[in-house]
Amino acid sequence: MDFAFSPRVEELRRRVAAFMDEHVYPNERLAEQQVAASDDEHREPPIVTEIRARAKREGLWNFFMPDREWGQGLSNHEYAPLCEIMGRSPIGPRAFNCMAPDTGNMEILAEFGTREQHERWLKPCLEGKMRTCFSMTEPETAGSDPTQLQTRAVRDGDDYVINGHKWFTTGAMHAGFAIVMAVTDPAAPPHRRASQIIVPAGTPGFNIIRPVPVMGHTGGGGHCEIRYEDCRVPATNLLGKEGDGFAIAQARLGPGRIHHCMRTIGVAERALELACKRANTRFTHGSLLADKANIQEWIAESRIEIDATRLMVMHAAWKMDTAGKREARNEISMIKVMAANMVMRVLDRAIQVHGAMGVSDDTPIARFWRDSRALRIVDGPDEVHRMAIARRELRRWKD
Amino acid sequence: MDFAFSPRVEELRRRVAAFMDEHVYPNERLAEQQVAASDDEHREPPIVTEIRARAKREGLWNFFMPDREWGQGLSNHEYAPLCEIMGRSPIGPRAFNCMAPDTGNMEILAEFGTREQHERWLKPCLEGKMRTCFSMTEPETAGSDPTQLQTRAVRDGDDYVINGHKWFTTGAMHAGFAIVMAVTDPAAPPHRRASQIIVPAGTPGFNIIRPVPVMGHTGGGGHCEIRYEDCRVPATNLLGKEGDGFAIAQARLGPGRIHHCMRTIGVAERALELACKRANTRFTHGSLLADKANIQEWIAESRIEIDATRLMVMHAAWKMDTAGKREARNEISMIKVMAANMVMRVLDRAIQVHGAMGVSDDTPIARFWRDSRALRIVDGPDEVHRMAIARRELRRWKD
Amino acid sequence: MDFAFSPRVEELRRRVAAFMDEHVYPNERLAEQQVAASDDEHREPPIVTEIRARAKREGLWNFFMPDREWGQGLSNHEYAPLCEIMGRSPIGPRAFNCMAPDTGNMEILAEFGTREQHERWLKPCLEGKMRTCFSMTEPETAGSDPTQLQTRAVRDGDDYVINGHKWFTTGAMHAGFAIVMAVTDPAAPPHRRASQIIVPAGTPGFNIIRPVPVMGHTGGGGHCEIRYEDCRVPATNLLGKEGDGFAIAQARLGPGRIHHCMRTIGVAERALELACKRANTRFTHGSLLADKANIQEWIAESRIEIDATRLMVMHAAWKMDTAGKREARNEISMIKVMAANMVMRVLDRAIQVHGAMGVSDDTPIARFWRDSRALRIVDGPDEVHRMAIARRELRRWKD
Amino acid sequence: MDFAFSPRVEELRRRVAAFMDEHVYPNERLAEQQVAASDDEHREPPIVTEIRARAKREGLWNFFMPDREWGQGLSNHEYAPLCEIMGRSPIGPRAFNCMAPDTGNMEILAEFGTREQHERWLKPCLEGKMRTCFSMTEPETAGSDPTQLQTRAVRDGDDYVINGHKWFTTGAMHAGFAIVMAVTDPAAPPHRRASQIIVPAGTPGFNIIRPVPVMGHTGGGGHCEIRYEDCRVPATNLLGKEGDGFAIAQARLGPGRIHHCMRTIGVAERALELACKRANTRFTHGSLLADKANIQEWIAESRIEIDATRLMVMHAAWKMDTAGKREARNEISMIKVMAANMVMRVLDRAIQVHGAMGVSDDTPIARFWRDSRALRIVDGPDEVHRMAIARRELRRWKD
Repeated sequence: MDFAFSPRVEELRRRVAAFMDEHVYPNERLAEQQVAASDDEHREPPIVTEIRARAKREGLWNFFMPDREWGQGLSNHEYAPLCEIMGRSPIGPRAFNCMAPDTGNMEILAEFGTREQHERWLKPCLEGKMRTCFSMTEPETAGSDPTQLQTRAVRDGDDYVINGHKWFTTGAMHAGFAIVMAVTDPAAPPHRRASQIIVPAGTPGFNIIRPVPVMGHTGGGGHCEIRYEDCRVPATNLLGKEGDGFAIAQARLGPGRIHHCMRTIGVAERALELACKRANTRFTHGSLLADKANIQEWIAESRIEIDATRLMVMHAAWKMDTAGKREARNEISMIKVMAANMVMRVLDRAIQVHGAMGVSDDTPIARFWRDSRALRIVDGPDEVHRMAIARRELRRWKD
Repeated sequence: MDFAFSPRVEELRRRVAAFMDEHVYPNERLAEQQVAASDDEHREPPIVTEIRARAKREGLWNFFMPDREWGQGLSNHEYAPLCEIMGRSPIGPRAFNCMAPDTGNMEILAEFGTREQHERWLKPCLEGKMRTCFSMTEPETAGSDPTQLQTRAVRDGDDYVINGHKWFTTGAMHAGFAIVMAVTDPAAPPHRRASQIIVPAGTPGFNIIRPVPVMGHTGGGGHCEIRYEDCRVPATNLLGKEGDGFAIAQARLGPGRIHHCMRTIGVAERALELACKRANTRFTHGSLLADKANIQEWIAESRIEIDATRLMVMHAAWKMDTAGKREARNEISMIKVMAANMVMRVLDRAIQVHGAMGVSDDTPIARFWRDSRALRIVDGPDEVHRMAIARRELRRWKD
Repeated sequence: MDFAFSPRVEELRRRVAAFMDEHVYPNERLAEQQVAASDDEHREPPIVTEIRARAKREGLWNFFMPDREWGQGLSNHEYAPLCEIMGRSPIGPRAFNCMAPDTGNMEILAEFGTREQHERWLKPCLEGKMRTCFSMTEPETAGSDPTQLQTRAVRDGDDYVINGHKWFTTGAMHAGFAIVMAVTDPAAPPHRRASQIIVPAGTPGFNIIRPVPVMGHTGGGGHCEIRYEDCRVPATNLLGKEGDGFAIAQARLGPGRIHHCMRTIGVAERALELACKRANTRFTHGSLLADKANIQEWIAESRIEIDATRLMVMHAAWKMDTAGKREARNEISMIKVMAANMVMRVLDRAIQVHGAMGVSDDTPIARFWRDSRALRIVDGPDEVHRMAIARRELRRWKD
Repeated sequence: MDFAFSPRVEELRRRVAAFMDEHVYPNERLAEQQVAASDDEHREPPIVTEIRARAKREGLWNFFMPDREWGQGLSNHEYAPLCEIMGRSPIGPRAFNCMAPDTGNMEILAEFGTREQHERWLKPCLEGKMRTCFSMTEPETAGSDPTQLQTRAVRDGDDYVINGHKWFTTGAMHAGFAIVMAVTDPAAPPHRRASQIIVPAGTPGFNIIRPVPVMGHTGGGGHCEIRYEDCRVPATNLLGKEGDGFAIAQARLGPGRIHHCMRTIGVAERALELACKRANTRFTHGSLLADKANIQEWIAESRIEIDATRLMVMHAAWKMDTAGKREARNEISMIKVMAANMVMRVLDRAIQVHGAMGVSDDTPIARFWRDSRALRIVDGPDEVHRMAIARRELRRWKD
């Protein structure tokens, strides 16, 4: 048993943190202002483009990719502490080309894609020249229940013809392609019904209805509603084999959830730092906030909850690395629930410590709070993960 | 002991609810679209103007005003259930000219204003032709601690000259005037230092710096940052007497907090209704959400918490009506804390029941959730009210 | 709408509180010592017998009985505030002959009993000469699910012969009789299968196996496990008609639950009083506990939760009095859940304020905490009541 | 980073668990019955004596002692998983001679004792022939605030003469000696005022007033109130040097708290196991409890909270082992708070799953629930640890 990071990881942590200090945090406000001043809220602000170029030059790039051919060859438990640091800023993950949903898409392209797919879709993403989206969730059915998927892809000659209705296809507004989850064989067993197919952004029938307004915003890549209407793509755009859709989705979700959790811990650390700084300087009713026992309790509880969540995430990553994705399913469900709930509590306390400033956008806390709420829903709501965890536990105690 | 509403109140509840059904709920989306399509996010959308005209014609107007000379002569506990119904829609309170912060400002104008002030400032508000703002909170000091107020108003001949820095002056972007809280006698005892002064919107030195972005938005009347720079107004603009500032603020806050609480209960009821409708129709993992025990618990807890909060608010209103504002201080602090926390829990559950749709703006829930978070801070943060409640309780048990 | 108590109720509150101050609180410790020193932990300690005699003489007796023929003729909402005061001491309800489970049994005897049953069973109870128990819960089945009841009563000539296994028959160790819930017609619809039958304590086949140890104790009347083995009683011992069992149980539970809730509020008030007194005098880490913000929050939250629960209980009682037991079912379920959970939070905080003394039996808090935990289970667990509340709410929103 | 146990630890875990299965769990009820049937509730029941003899024979003994001279030489993070397994039964820690408060006392005797003290006091304890108590807490002052300590030890020739009032001296009823914390130099700086002195049980002036009734019980070693009245012991009974009292107390508390936390995790695991078994077999309202979403959530939350707490404890133990006791202070404070609160939630859910049986003593859950409540108070209440954690965190963010 050893809780220490390796020297390589320590060195990378130091470098990523220094880059954040120098280039990311100081430009958060500017990035926001550039978006606000732009006539296209979906366009990447120039300062972010600039930061990304610098990170790439410095080799602080594509840490998420475990495959040494494509990335840095870091295992999940080595990447996790870096991912946490990036997560401390809304523009952090993007700075290092480690932003969702692209990371997940790049991973499955690397793992399941053909050589041709690697060339055409994966490489531009790794080079930071193309963005992506993952088109799975449907408005009419519960995404966590795979048997309900309705979008259809019908083989027609050398093509697939896709029809269906999706939403929350995050990032579609500026994606080069979507990876679409569609039923290819309705008669197959539940987990073999669907496949994943690459749909280039300009394809006729790939109709973005709107970026669904989420927490008052439609900007960035958008959480898009899309109608696939006789959308025809070559059969070579199939990822893996027909019927592999759910297996690939699972392969995508494991690391994806861990990454989300690590970023979330970064968010919580940032919020706690800001809360402490505020408490150290705000005087009211006879003392600094830092000297009041209720504020102290919030800070202590936040520290405990953050540290506990980090250890759980590190453990899940380590188990995934040593025992495999499938064996680590329960650990991943646990951190999914734990991190998403933890961060909301920490952010809520940080808001309250800031008073009126806490609900304003003069700190990043209120934005983190709005954005993080979705984490209890995406990639499977709390309730579905808790059900899965409970069933495994209950099964242990059946005679 | 009798928990029943009077026949008059029952009749008004029926009429207000019918008006909401017919004119308010169906136009919520349109109002939002008109704002989005407008080139001025601070302007009232035309549909709201239209609804207000109709409500006024029908006599569904100014219910909040306890004074029969100016309003409907409803006591607080009679107005409360109407206020709840209006609170069910973001545009509800405005439809009936019962929106904060105008209601509070109209009340103090009625109670403390001179005949001339009534004519010039109160009447246009009551007629729905002018809006107002209340300029008290300062960025550098804790608003809940009156001894820290820094803005100064210095008597100069027949004028006051005001200098200071405010923010969260809600509604300033379209207000006809501000009521400003400023120190007129720094040497007076803590609660006699400040006065309230009416500052017309166009006055030189009344400099709106910006609507502070709050939860991603700057629209509507804005939560404005204002710099008062040698802002000169006639001394006749003083409300009440010099040094009355805190007393008037207290008089304003009592009913104001009750109104907020009642609206908040309306918000919670709306969210619970939407959650139930969703649960009744959404099928996942083998059953309707409505049939799952965890969802049922959320609904039951929400029902209990809403009903308990309503009774507490009704009781506080009744006590204010029968024993006076000062005697009801503790009850008002209690509902302030209770309602603001309750609504966040109910909204959070409603979001979760809706899944991805819950964080979208396709329902009003996410907006309510963003907007309601401030309620735990404005008009005194939870912590200050709890401190006050505790001190009174502790005092009871000192020998 | 009027939240004031009537003059009669105010007068009774004053008298009951004065009796508690003079005779009950000062003798709590003595009562415990007498039990500890006795060779029969099930026997009433002499001091309690003495207090009861005095209360009876002073006419502070049988307040619970709404029927003017048998009791004081107080409605539920008039009795509630008295019940709260009695609940403040473990020996309080008994002092005034208002202790569970006797109150519920007396009520149903009064309402459903024959004249003969009144003479033989009700009168001695009202006079304080006999105690009772209610034998419904069975170890093998969920008590909240009436379709699972297994104990059988078979008519045999002029008798019923009862066989079955019960537990948590509270008070059986010193009861003059049990009212037993047994299936008389297994083929009837679920809610007409059972009947209630009076079984005198000495009847052969009424076999008390043991007082089940509950929270480390077996004393007082005990929560008894009983085997009914060919237990034969005259058919005239039937309460009401055959098949009325569930209806009578429901009639018993409504007021019974309200009484429990009111006593529970008394428990919480007592705990809060003790916590405040402790906080006012205990000095640690530089200040009195009373001056620390976290302790203040506990006190404020306790005050809010107690007051909110009381209003909910008063409202439920009022609704039961004005609209009837059946109409008030939802309100009763709500207070059942709310009070039982509230008191545990208040007690938990009171323990913590007392430090080591809080887990000792040098205050009544730890005993209240142990005893109150069962309230979330008896008379229907939280989960069943929440399910019922949710179903009613969900039904409102079905088109 | 490596979360795996070493082969030696895995082997010991297997052996300890097997011993628990074979000898401890099956005899829990018998041990209780022997105490109940005994005329001395403070005497060790014979079955426990027997189990202890067997464990000693099998070498499953004194695992807690890190010093290889006296024990098994296991580090804290190696001992922790064994301690968890022992904690699963109320009689588990004792079976392996690893019970508080003896473990802590043996550790400080080993570390700070003279050779003579080792012979006379440590060895009999290690051999399981003598028990001990630690006499620090005083009724009049807050134990967590060392500056308030009042008990005095005055040097008189070759003796110390001790006067003072203690309580919650756990285990005094059957202890061979007490280690007493007393002020030897009132004028010294706060943390050098006190010393620790060994007082043999029979010493005149060592007056046990009573075992303070705690949660309804006075049995076992008792949480004793003691008056030291001119209690004279030889100066050679001083542990360490004069003024070392607080330093030794700190040295004692670090591992002591970790041990408590590990046992607590064992308690939680046991409760979760029992809850799952109950849920798997109890049928109500149309399904097994195991199939109800609310019960599933309790189980999932319990699993998450237990696993997170265990990782935090393992990490704290590892840090203590690698960086030292002092460096691990914050980690120890965090687990102290986390474990003590976690176990109460898990136990509470386990009670509720069991219904009426949950509050009975037919399972060990209710006893665990009563006994565990003190964990939020002993060794420093939650509030003091949270204050310490917060202060360290706040200090990080002071410029």
